[in-house]
Amino acid sequence: MDTLPNKSVLVIIDVQKGFVDPRWGRRNNPQAETVMARLLAAWRASNRPVFHVQHLSVMPGSPLRPENPGSAFKDEVRPLEGEPIFQKHVNSAFIGTGLEARLRADGYDTLVIIGLTTPHCVSTTARMAGNLGFRTYVVSDATAAFGLTGPDGREYSAEEVHALSLATIHNEFAEVIESRFILDAMETHSGAV
Amino acid sequence: MDTLPNKSVLVIIDVQKGFVDPRWGRRNNPQAETVMARLLAAWRASNRPVFHVQHLSVMPGSPLRPENPGSAFKDEVRPLEGEPIFQKHVNSAFIGTGLEARLRADGYDTLVIIGLTTPHCVSTTARMAGNLGFRTYVVSDATAAFGLTGPDGREYSAEEVHALSLATIHNEFAEVIESRFILDAMETHSGAV
Repeated sequence: MDTLPNKSVLVIIDVQKGFVDPRWGRRNNPQAETVMARLLAAWRASNRPVFHVQHLSVMPGSPLRPENPGSAFKDEVRPLEGEPIFQKHVNSAFIGTGLEARLRADGYDTLVIIGLTTPHCVSTTARMAGNLGFRTYVVSDATAAFGLTGPDGREYSAEEVHALSLATIHNEFAEVIESRFILDAMETHSGAV
Repeated sequence: MDTLPNKSVLVIIDVQKGFVDPRWGRRNNPQAETVMARLLAAWRASNRPVFHVQHLSVMPGSPLRPENPGSAFKDEVRPLEGEPIFQKHVNSAFIGTGLEARLRADGYDTLVIIGLTTPHCVSTTARMAGNLGFRTYVVSDATAAFGLTGPDGREYSAEEVHALSLATIHNEFAEVIESRFILDAMETHSGAV
């Protein structure tokens, strides 16, 4: 990445308190929220657009149901007044929301995606973003995964799920990139961040 | 799976000659096309709907570009007169096609997805199908993957990519199931297939 367009949108997916619930199991990238906060601060300081995505689950018992405290944003990424929030009920931030229409209306063609979780909502949103024609980046150290069990009962660690989920989207739907390269590109382009 | 609704649609994704090109590397599930042909025969014999999806690449040099012989369907899954064909230019069979509108118009709410490749077009189509509210199955032995290289240069075998791609969609977007259970459910439901 050489430069990051001024109109690049930081899309923050599902960084909500309910993901600390023990039901999800062990997670990788414990530093992800710290990295997200760093990116968010840089975005705000450079006056680039920030879009928040909030999952409101319709699954019985989910900590992310709208009536549960777990549906609230984590403190590290709490929206500021005026930053758009897109609420969704499925994995893709493009389904059942006004996200695509808003991006087109505002003329934003570059997305930098961060958030939770790598194999599900982040991957699905990045796949659709790429397929809809947006130039899409996924920040590898600002996303995280939980372990998963396959249909054959085989278990995969959070690290395996995270790494392979990124490999399946890289160079096909999105460019997967570390946060330091994004931050460098912001400084190059806009002077001081 | 107990029974398979009569209106379940077999969705066959990108089973095209160009995927034998050596550029894709080593593949898993060499028997997948044989399994696909078996499912397709059972679908036709039971008068269930079959939808074909054909990828017409816009990438320079791709064997799946429309002017290349590799864009043709493999013999095992060649469409019959009257079976709808949805042509697409990106991974998801729901983007830029009339697939969703046709499924809604025909009242089809159950999809059985097979084809190529597991991590890209099959996974992306299954994710969107589930998120759009369709009851979705992916047949594990009627899909296949190629190896991939991650953003950090790490290489993943076709088997790893296939297995983890299925694990990331199972019970979140789709039910991943072996063909024998699908074929059993068809016989149970419709008598003779």
